[in-house]
Amino acid sequence: MDLIIKNGTIISPTETYQADIAVAKGKIAAIGRDFPEERATVVDARDKLVLPGALDVHTHLAMPFGGTVSADGYMSGTRAAACGGVTTVFDYPVQRKGMSILGLIEEKKSICEAEACVDYAFHCCITDLNDGGILTEMEQAVQEGITSFKCFFVYKKEGMMVDDATFARLLLRAKDVGAVINIHAENPDLIDLNIEQFKKEGKMSPWYHYLSRPEYVEAEGDKRAIHWAKNFQSPLYIVHMADKEGLEAAIDAKREGHEIYVETCPQYLEFTSEVYKREDGRNFVCSPPMKGQESQEALWKAIKSGGIDTIATDHCPFQSYEKDWGKDDFTKIPNGCAGIETMYPYMLAAANEGKLSFNKVVELCSANPARIFGCTKKGSLTVGKDADIVIYDPQKDFKITVAAMHSDYDHTIWEGKELHGYPVMTFLRGQLVYQDGKFVGKPGWGKFIKRAGR
Amino acid sequence: MDLIIKNGTIISPTETYQADIAVAKGKIAAIGRDFPEERATVVDARDKLVLPGALDVHTHLAMPFGGTVSADGYMSGTRAAACGGVTTVFDYPVQRKGMSILGLIEEKKSICEAEACVDYAFHCCITDLNDGGILTEMEQAVQEGITSFKCFFVYKKEGMMVDDATFARLLLRAKDVGAVINIHAENPDLIDLNIEQFKKEGKMSPWYHYLSRPEYVEAEGDKRAIHWAKNFQSPLYIVHMADKEGLEAAIDAKREGHEIYVETCPQYLEFTSEVYKREDGRNFVCSPPMKGQESQEALWKAIKSGGIDTIATDHCPFQSYEKDWGKDDFTKIPNGCAGIETMYPYMLAAANEGKLSFNKVVELCSANPARIFGCTKKGSLTVGKDADIVIYDPQKDFKITVAAMHSDYDHTIWEGKELHGYPVMTFLRGQLVYQDGKFVGKPGWGKFIKRAGR
Amino acid sequence: MDLIIKNGTIISPTETYQADIAVAKGKIAAIGRDFPEERATVVDARDKLVLPGALDVHTHLAMPFGGTVSADGYMSGTRAAACGGVTTVFDYPVQRKGMSILGLIEEKKSICEAEACVDYAFHCCITDLNDGGILTEMEQAVQEGITSFKCFFVYKKEGMMVDDATFARLLLRAKDVGAVINIHAENPDLIDLNIEQFKKEGKMSPWYHYLSRPEYVEAEGDKRAIHWAKNFQSPLYIVHMADKEGLEAAIDAKREGHEIYVETCPQYLEFTSEVYKREDGRNFVCSPPMKGQESQEALWKAIKSGGIDTIATDHCPFQSYEKDWGKDDFTKIPNGCAGIETMYPYMLAAANEGKLSFNKVVELCSANPARIFGCTKKGSLTVGKDADIVIYDPQKDFKITVAAMHSDYDHTIWEGKELHGYPVMTFLRGQLVYQDGKFVGKPGWGKFIKRAGR
Amino acid sequence: MDLIIKNGTIISPTETYQADIAVAKGKIAAIGRDFPEERATVVDARDKLVLPGALDVHTHLAMPFGGTVSADGYMSGTRAAACGGVTTVFDYPVQRKGMSILGLIEEKKSICEAEACVDYAFHCCITDLNDGGILTEMEQAVQEGITSFKCFFVYKKEGMMVDDATFARLLLRAKDVGAVINIHAENPDLIDLNIEQFKKEGKMSPWYHYLSRPEYVEAEGDKRAIHWAKNFQSPLYIVHMADKEGLEAAIDAKREGHEIYVETCPQYLEFTSEVYKREDGRNFVCSPPMKGQESQEALWKAIKSGGIDTIATDHCPFQSYEKDWGKDDFTKIPNGCAGIETMYPYMLAAANEGKLSFNKVVELCSANPARIFGCTKKGSLTVGKDADIVIYDPQKDFKITVAAMHSDYDHTIWEGKELHGYPVMTFLRGQLVYQDGKFVGKPGWGKFIKRAGR
Repeated sequence: MDLIIKNGTIISPTETYQADIAVAKGKIAAIGRDFPEERATVVDARDKLVLPGALDVHTHLAMPFGGTVSADGYMSGTRAAACGGVTTVFDYPVQRKGMSILGLIEEKKSICEAEACVDYAFHCCITDLNDGGILTEMEQAVQEGITSFKCFFVYKKEGMMVDDATFARLLLRAKDVGAVINIHAENPDLIDLNIEQFKKEGKMSPWYHYLSRPEYVEAEGDKRAIHWAKNFQSPLYIVHMADKEGLEAAIDAKREGHEIYVETCPQYLEFTSEVYKREDGRNFVCSPPMKGQESQEALWKAIKSGGIDTIATDHCPFQSYEKDWGKDDFTKIPNGCAGIETMYPYMLAAANEGKLSFNKVVELCSANPARIFGCTKKGSLTVGKDADIVIYDPQKDFKITVAAMHSDYDHTIWEGKELHGYPVMTFLRGQLVYQDGKFVGKPGWGKFIKRAGR
Repeated sequence: MDLIIKNGTIISPTETYQADIAVAKGKIAAIGRDFPEERATVVDARDKLVLPGALDVHTHLAMPFGGTVSADGYMSGTRAAACGGVTTVFDYPVQRKGMSILGLIEEKKSICEAEACVDYAFHCCITDLNDGGILTEMEQAVQEGITSFKCFFVYKKEGMMVDDATFARLLLRAKDVGAVINIHAENPDLIDLNIEQFKKEGKMSPWYHYLSRPEYVEAEGDKRAIHWAKNFQSPLYIVHMADKEGLEAAIDAKREGHEIYVETCPQYLEFTSEVYKREDGRNFVCSPPMKGQESQEALWKAIKSGGIDTIATDHCPFQSYEKDWGKDDFTKIPNGCAGIETMYPYMLAAANEGKLSFNKVVELCSANPARIFGCTKKGSLTVGKDADIVIYDPQKDFKITVAAMHSDYDHTIWEGKELHGYPVMTFLRGQLVYQDGKFVGKPGWGKFIKRAGR
Repeated sequence: MDLIIKNGTIISPTETYQADIAVAKGKIAAIGRDFPEERATVVDARDKLVLPGALDVHTHLAMPFGGTVSADGYMSGTRAAACGGVTTVFDYPVQRKGMSILGLIEEKKSICEAEACVDYAFHCCITDLNDGGILTEMEQAVQEGITSFKCFFVYKKEGMMVDDATFARLLLRAKDVGAVINIHAENPDLIDLNIEQFKKEGKMSPWYHYLSRPEYVEAEGDKRAIHWAKNFQSPLYIVHMADKEGLEAAIDAKREGHEIYVETCPQYLEFTSEVYKREDGRNFVCSPPMKGQESQEALWKAIKSGGIDTIATDHCPFQSYEKDWGKDDFTKIPNGCAGIETMYPYMLAAANEGKLSFNKVVELCSANPARIFGCTKKGSLTVGKDADIVIYDPQKDFKITVAAMHSDYDHTIWEGKELHGYPVMTFLRGQLVYQDGKFVGKPGWGKFIKRAGR
Repeated sequence: MDLIIKNGTIISPTETYQADIAVAKGKIAAIGRDFPEERATVVDARDKLVLPGALDVHTHLAMPFGGTVSADGYMSGTRAAACGGVTTVFDYPVQRKGMSILGLIEEKKSICEAEACVDYAFHCCITDLNDGGILTEMEQAVQEGITSFKCFFVYKKEGMMVDDATFARLLLRAKDVGAVINIHAENPDLIDLNIEQFKKEGKMSPWYHYLSRPEYVEAEGDKRAIHWAKNFQSPLYIVHMADKEGLEAAIDAKREGHEIYVETCPQYLEFTSEVYKREDGRNFVCSPPMKGQESQEALWKAIKSGGIDTIATDHCPFQSYEKDWGKDDFTKIPNGCAGIETMYPYMLAAANEGKLSFNKVVELCSANPARIFGCTKKGSLTVGKDADIVIYDPQKDFKITVAAMHSDYDHTIWEGKELHGYPVMTFLRGQLVYQDGKFVGKPGWGKFIKRAGR
């Protein structure tokens, strides 16, 4: 054995139990007791929880947006991931209008090969069917392990929006080739209308970012996406769900037996639209924006009753000086916030204070994303799977500060948040990559995950 | 008194009772018994029902569509109306892109002044806001008695579609000026996608007209329209509802207290999509198409439980040779069917066989449309209102044939339908305009109805 | 003509219009203008509303309860009714265990013949099937014009409760004989359990009357009653609905097409359970008790969207000294409050301040109760119907005081309530019975209403 | 190691993976690969599935009913269990009116100590609160590991019914002491009414067993039970759910966050009420009876979408001659059918043909019942848990016949049912108790399971 983690309490989505884990060749070789320790690194996890590494299935690294690029590249972003217990990161490359997606993926893979500190996968954002050529490429992409594709109902002016016919074609094609479509669901026309109106009225503070895309703007997109998915009997994954009405439509559809998945993010669980009234409101600008308290309560309730399938981050940080561009005009604020390093600790701390179970956190942050997106070697501490392991100290107190993070950004919306309990070690396929506040891995250790289709 | 109708059974939305009606100067002067008959025309309505004239609030007369013009102009259409017990017709003039609606209405009024055989009103179809100029015109239009406006979610290529932002602006503006928005709710993108697909596959028979815009295509439009109306707290009138899912969304919204009105048409109550499989399926082509049996049953159920507010016709007939253009290509069939003369007789015959009450028919075809659209002098046999009166013989059998109709079209989807019970007289403001199968009025007798706003 | 009411504004459930009413032989002879006035009493109703008399379809006159008898007998109760614009009163005689209902009705009729100041009808409360004998009597009762029967899910100890099997038999029998079942729906076991518990804990103030039968106690009864009515496809009328959950179950069932009627009372629209915390809380004790604000809001909302069919009073007042019996023990408070004289004025005042339309009040208080319960000559101002007419002055201010009431009770929960608008005249079949605060009719003028079945 | 199961495919509720299992001292010692085999029994499970033993949480062994006793006693019943892959059996001792439950449990434990072939636990049926004494006993029972109690809404004449007040007290008490209430939910009054009616009409064939307690009879009980559980915020477990309407009410309540659990049984998934029309319909008589196809489809749908939590059997067989008592009178048929040995094979065969996943079967038959009822050492193949293991051959074909069963009954409703896939070995805490069609364990090997409260 190469590594033995002993005396810990193992958390699976359904069980909490005491056992030791033996790792060999990067995989979980055995779970039991009293493994022979010779030649093995031995970690004593007494009084600690032993968890599967999380998958952050929603990030935008080195993402061009609003005239700049998101502050975390593949290196720093995946380094931060490792330090937050995330051992697999999904990035969202965006098809350039008229261009191939296969080429794009190759391009991204070659960058990550050198830079990634944890394992990585890609959903591919489709903005243009290229007269149907992309539908052909989708099949090949699936064969290469890209088994999910995203599209946007928004970003009309940016040329990223898909109309309903394109969305329908993607849903039908995804079903044919064994993939799933991810949707960013908001209504673009209403956003533009609201912005136009606020501009006329000189209402340009961050609070109007929220008011330009409030609950009803997101709910319309959610309901329309669900409508098509139901009618075409196609699987659908709704990213960053933040509003109650859309959430309830999704839960209704699930109950009728439709394969609808719902993702939400820690920022929607922690903050409400009230943050946009703050002095530093611009730093919280992301899309969809945080919503009102009623939506937040609905999200927490759905987490408990099974309506939410996954937690991810929509990690897409920008530097303070970039956020400042929109100080007096919310439309100039690059959209996005940091989250990759704090997601798992935030959810686990919530479990630690009893808001949900540790098992549920493991289900939401690891097992479900792995299952939904075809990462067959990820998602739980099961013999034969990758030894992506997080040691979590439920007694360790931690205050989030930008200085303590391992990204390249210069501020975080999570600044000052105190967590009771924190990860103390992360292993990537058996290799220690994070320990006690320090990144101890290396760029290039991360590998591309070729995912299974359905 | 000018006219006395005696010994009949009067039907109101809530009462059925025996009394005589006295008419003076075109208005209902009194309801009672034994009025002095000197100098009055006396009609004995013994064993007959005495009903308020119907309002057909959805017609397209002299409507340019698909390279031709609908077969009934203002003269023939309103003549047919009179012969079917309809004493008020609403036409839908369509704004020409970039042009004024006020001018359009004047134009239509002047034509009708000469041609109309019954009273008339206009909803105005808006296709273009003209940089907001139309929003200004709307207020003036309301002052002139045009208190409802229609828009289309469909007819994208024809340049008639409004996007969600335009629809939102219309809803908000209508609320401000005391008007209501009527919506033709289907999803244009999916229709186009389906047509494109069928074209590729060479599936061009009328059956594919239905399959290109089946239940889910209409339901999406309904649900989206309702979503916006609810969020903007604006009244909304959904024309020609034909599908169950959209209908149920409307009923949900009504129950929550929203001012949502639902119209359906006799063709959706009588026919299902099966008609498109017939040899003469092209003659039944209209939009939205007839739907499946489940939707038809839902419509009848909603009529009984209050979910449907009005019956209208979407009267828009085309000649056989025009329908034939699409014999081998459903996209070339001009959309629309005849209905103006058969609506009231059809619904009354349904009452006569016990499917609903006569009171309910009067509510759906007369009282509700008058109330919703501000025709304060129409809609019931009440002292002071216009003496628009229909005498109905519940024992008279009638078989619908094109020869017996009073329109200019050369065929009807209702051919051969046997009705038990039929109107025998129609009075327009006290003047006899129809008797025993013959039109006895004159073009020009009809007057413009200046409607009240809300 | 005997009576002419001129220049008023007539209110029907669907129309508001100016016309004169001519009355002959107690019936509405004509509605029109400028009737010859010779030999007629002429009432000028300029600036007044002319309304149909209300039906209070839920009263308990001379009702034995809690060791006493309700404070209003047939004389004083119907006198008060007349003064509040109520021209037809329904009483609820209660079958004595093992005894005939036909005999009971005869008994009540003979009392009323002498005492009634307005017209009267009876629902009969059934407490015991007498081995099925009552089922036989029901048919005869219907023939005699008693076309509705009530039963109680509560009052187990008092021997008035029916179990589910008895309720089912009544529903099925009522359907057979063309009658409708009225249900008082609360759960008796939970009431008793709660009372027992409060007794142990010494919690005996009126607040515990509410807590012993809160929302969930009523909701269970409502849902169970609706369940059976739906399954047996029998009409059901739920009396004094006061909770949101039960109300919503009823609305769901109506929407599915079931013949479920819902009655609520002014006290549930005006007061909430907070009144039981008042010093004089005992005076508000009735069953079901007033509920929380959420229920009250649901009732108002349902009034507007059609979920409530009728308003009635559950009039059953007790004298202060009787209410005082339960000063220290809520179980000793006779259940019931006054309402017969204030119902119509309260609802009309609500219309006067814009909470609902006058048409809606007429529908709830007159047209619907008449229609549901087969009073074919009541419910609207229509030619041929009884001339039960109320003249309402929308400008008259009135403060409710017990001194101004025409009952025999010595206090009212409505004390001090200020109403804008008040009835100034009531006509019973053309005879003036109330004018400007004074009863001007006579006991014995009221007649038994033989009702139609369905 | 005492036992090694190698080369098999392990099924957990969330994972399917290849690994070996090592057992020591009756517990799962390790999961991994290539364990040292000396001194161990080695089982080669190549091409087999390795599953946790099932828990049948609903059986009636040696149950007095209808003048006889169920055909399987503790010995034969648990023997059959072992042969069907069930390693833990829950029995339902029924409190004798007025008697202690603690004594009853002791009595049952002492019988089982000698007879049980697999592990056993008891839910205790409560029929009488003994003036509250039972509420006191409940706390002690929980301390002794009896953490669930059942009650009946039915069996009124048999003295087993609880009324709503008693049910409420049990729900509240259970919440206090950390237990859960199980409910048999049907409406007793309607059953009796229906039976009485059928008796009069001479309709006494088994088909009238169904018609005396059809869907609406069960639905009422379900909805009432859920109503109280929701209002008292108490956990509730509904046994043998068989109707759609009740099921949907339960799913609604779960979605709102209430702790409602739903059990169904294989007989409701396989048979519909049509069986009661068969010649041998009496053999299928159990309560609740099988329902119509719509209910069956709803059950399967809910299994997939998470609405059903557990599968159990309600095992309560009677001999043919006893069933024959009711040949001409369904009320004389002892209620109950066999199922303990066929439950797991039936559900696994359903997975084998793709109706659901093997993981889902393990969740329904093992993990969920263990978790809900506090069997902390049961429910999955996890290190440290009891080595209750089933080896399943997905290729083995098996036809159910009474001869092949290991119970004492003489017929089975499952006769002739062909299953693709069947268990070939069962281990109880590491001991082989069943192999290839033969019971190889011993009475007395089963142990009492002291369950955890909540």
